[in-house]
Amino acid sequence: MITSLHNKDIKAAAALSAKKKERDRQGLFVVEGPKMFGEAPVERISRVYVAQSAAAQMYEQYGAKLSGLPCETVSDEVFAKMSDTKTPQGILCLVRQQHYYIEEILRDSVKKQMLFIMLEDIQDPGNLGTIFRTAEAAGADGVIMNSSTVDIYNPKTIRSTMGSVYRVPFFYVESLSSIIIRLREEGVSVYAAHLGGKDAYDDCSYQKSTAFLIGNEASGLREETAACADALIRIPMEGKVESLNAAVASSVLLFEASRQRRKIKT
Amino acid sequence: MITSLHNKDIKAAAALSAKKKERDRQGLFVVEGPKMFGEAPVERISRVYVAQSAAAQMYEQYGAKLSGLPCETVSDEVFAKMSDTKTPQGILCLVRQQHYYIEEILRDSVKKQMLFIMLEDIQDPGNLGTIFRTAEAAGADGVIMNSSTVDIYNPKTIRSTMGSVYRVPFFYVESLSSIIIRLREEGVSVYAAHLGGKDAYDDCSYQKSTAFLIGNEASGLREETAACADALIRIPMEGKVESLNAAVASSVLLFEASRQRRKIKT
Repeated sequence: MITSLHNKDIKAAAALSAKKKERDRQGLFVVEGPKMFGEAPVERISRVYVAQSAAAQMYEQYGAKLSGLPCETVSDEVFAKMSDTKTPQGILCLVRQQHYYIEEILRDSVKKQMLFIMLEDIQDPGNLGTIFRTAEAAGADGVIMNSSTVDIYNPKTIRSTMGSVYRVPFFYVESLSSIIIRLREEGVSVYAAHLGGKDAYDDCSYQKSTAFLIGNEASGLREETAACADALIRIPMEGKVESLNAAVASSVLLFEASRQRRKIKT
Repeated sequence: MITSLHNKDIKAAAALSAKKKERDRQGLFVVEGPKMFGEAPVERISRVYVAQSAAAQMYEQYGAKLSGLPCETVSDEVFAKMSDTKTPQGILCLVRQQHYYIEEILRDSVKKQMLFIMLEDIQDPGNLGTIFRTAEAAGADGVIMNSSTVDIYNPKTIRSTMGSVYRVPFFYVESLSSIIIRLREEGVSVYAAHLGGKDAYDDCSYQKSTAFLIGNEASGLREETAACADALIRIPMEGKVESLNAAVASSVLLFEASRQRRKIKT
């Protein structure tokens, strides 16, 4: 059992929770809690840590999955050092990052109705995670983010994906403009959610391959990015609300596409 | 200028941030930051506190609104004690709670298409605030919560309403069952979001007065509450997602009602 806060593996794991730079350097990220451990693809788990006080319960519940994995029991104090949460849940694991390639995904673009969500400068980790979860539920093929969007491997983001981070392909690009042009070449229509949009979102058809563009929580999309889209669309709002939460706007658009596609099928 | 952490007004304000019991006892709640102060109805503001380091800027920006209000400048240390946030934004105010009455709102129920969102056991303050913001944008007439739902006056909830807390009527009830029966008497159809729902949410018509029922983030609706609804509906999901975030599910349903009602008008 590891009891020293100065153990080098413990320090490396704590750095993964705290710093994007370390996550990129080590090619790993931290996943906390029984649910997220349970959903983690076993071939991507590099190491598991179990807190002493939770060890009996974790081995009982996850014995089969744990048996093939490098697993260390650590003191509760050591566990708390690695954990990002106020009330650690007794198990965490280091998971290998996955790299996806847009061209690989676009290979299917002629065959099927694709659906993407593109995010610019999203800052709230919880919003980003919720968007991944929603994107999977709405049948999206991928999430595309510019490099100023918060890190998908931020522990708060990971938690709010509820496991979708393992399953939804995603890409970071320096700027969204060039990828928008690439998507349009492949026949994907790009709709930018914009307060100045002319058409209501539900007056457009999303039967063909579609990508939705969502901007920063406070300032919206950059002008030069919005200018690359096929059309600006708006979500009609009542009351004195100035804008919707970014995850809410994403949900309304993604599920409108999902709704329209189901209607045609039936 | 107040510089003492032991000042009784400061202690009272700090208690409002920290404890629901104190908020209920004093009939007040705390609102932080320039945006939320700017949107607060002036007749409901009981007192304003400005941090010393932000005072010049706040008086310049909000001089007109501040001039008629009891306002105290406090040291940054004192301000931090009252604040709920890690990076205090220099201004906070105490606002009087507002009480709404369901019967008053239901008086309009024969005249118009009403729209309600009903929440059971929602625990995440950010989710609750986001639901208020979305409810206003979708044109809802009120938010109805059972008494085990998180407090709307929690500082985190207040922040994520982005001002909707001042404008959307809401009610807490001991249990939702009796209010569901009351709503149905008034001709409001009550749809429960439920993983076991038969109909897809977009196969129902929300042209008439409608209420949506949303349950706890992890465990969903209580059986006895779901049993009171007119119908159980589900949001079709792809992938391996088990459920949607509560604010996302609320958004999809509220904006589907809004969409259907706009379509008929035009």
